[in-house]
Amino acid sequence: MFIAEKGIENIETITLNLQAGEHRTPEFKAKNPFQRVPVLELDDGHYLSESMAICRYLDELHPKPALFGRNTLERAQVEEWNRRDEFNLLTATAAVFRHGTGLFAGQDNVFPEWGEANKNTVQKLYHMFNKHLANNTYFVGDYFSVADITALCTIDFAKFCGVSIPDEKAHLIRWRKAVAARPSAKA
Amino acid sequence: MFIAEKGIENIETITLNLQAGEHRTPEFKAKNPFQRVPVLELDDGHYLSESMAICRYLDELHPKPALFGRNTLERAQVEEWNRRDEFNLLTATAAVFRHGTGLFAGQDNVFPEWGEANKNTVQKLYHMFNKHLANNTYFVGDYFSVADITALCTIDFAKFCGVSIPDEKAHLIRWRKAVAARPSAKA
Repeated sequence: MFIAEKGIENIETITLNLQAGEHRTPEFKAKNPFQRVPVLELDDGHYLSESMAICRYLDELHPKPALFGRNTLERAQVEEWNRRDEFNLLTATAAVFRHGTGLFAGQDNVFPEWGEANKNTVQKLYHMFNKHLANNTYFVGDYFSVADITALCTIDFAKFCGVSIPDEKAHLIRWRKAVAARPSAKA
Repeated sequence: MFIAEKGIENIETITLNLQAGEHRTPEFKAKNPFQRVPVLELDDGHYLSESMAICRYLDELHPKPALFGRNTLERAQVEEWNRRDEFNLLTATAAVFRHGTGLFAGQDNVFPEWGEANKNTVQKLYHMFNKHLANNTYFVGDYFSVADITALCTIDFAKFCGVSIPDEKAHLIRWRKAVAARPSAKA
C-alpha cells in the first residue's frame, strides 16, 4: 500500500509461501537472518528487512507524496501514532492471532486465555482510537500518513483474527472506510 | 541516554512515580491518553509521546551527532536494527517482565509459562545478536546509533528480569561493555 501511494512501479515482487516454509531456507536466511518478510533487495546487493525500514528507505528515494510528515512536528506525530498502531494494536493483534484464534492449537506455548485478554486490549484500543478520530480526519489531523496505512492493515488483520470494530465506534468506522477506499488499499 | 549523546542540556525533567500511579491522573492522561512515559512538552503546548517519536523530534532540532544514520542506506539500517531490538527483544523482555518474574503474580492474565517461553526467545535473540556483532563493532557496522542505545536499555532491562547474557556470547558482551562505558550511559 505504501509503494502504491508513492506510485513506485519498478519494484519486482517475489511472493514466498510461508506455510510451505519458504522463508526458512538457507537462501532466505542469508537475506534476513530473522526469517521474516518483506525483504527489499537493493541494486548494490544489500538486503533490507523490517517494513518500516523499507518504507523509510523508499521515502528518501521518492519523497513525494510525503507519508512520514511534512515538517518536524508532523514527522514526530506520524511516528507517535505509527508506534501506537504497532506497539499497542499490532502486538495485541499478533497475540490474538497466535493464542486466540485456535490456528496454533496444540503447539507449544499457546495460551487461549492470553488470546482472550488481548481481544479485550484490541477493543480498548478501538475505543481510544475512535475518540481520537472524533476530532481528526486521519491519525495525524487532516494529513494522510503511513500511520493510517499501518492502522488499516492491523485492523483488517484483527478482523481476520475475529476482532471487528463494534458498530458504535462510528468515527473509527468512518476513518476505516475512507482509508480502505483509496486505490492503494487494493495493492 | 539519547539526550546525553546529543549534548542537549535545556530539557527540564519531571519524574513520575509510576508505582504510585502518577501516570494515571486526569492531568497526565490529558498529556498522553495512553498513560505512558516519557512525554515531551513543547514550547507551543503540544505534547509528544513514544520514545522514538521524541528522539526523532530532538534529532531534527539537534542533528549532531547523527544517531539515526548519516546517509539513506545507513538510516534504513539503523531503523532495521532498532526495530529488531524493539519488536523482537523488547517485546519478549516485556513478556518476561509481566509473566516471568513473579512481580505480577496473582493478577489477571499472568501466565508464568508464557514468561518462561519468552526467556527462551530472549536467549535465541542474544545468540543472533552475538553472531551479528562478531562482524560489527556496533549494530550498524562501526557506526554508533540509536539502535545501540535501544539494545543496551533492553538488555539491561532483561537482566533486571533475570535474563542475563551467557558468558559464551563474547561479542555481545564486548559490545555491551563498550556501549555501557559511554558517559551517556550514566545519564
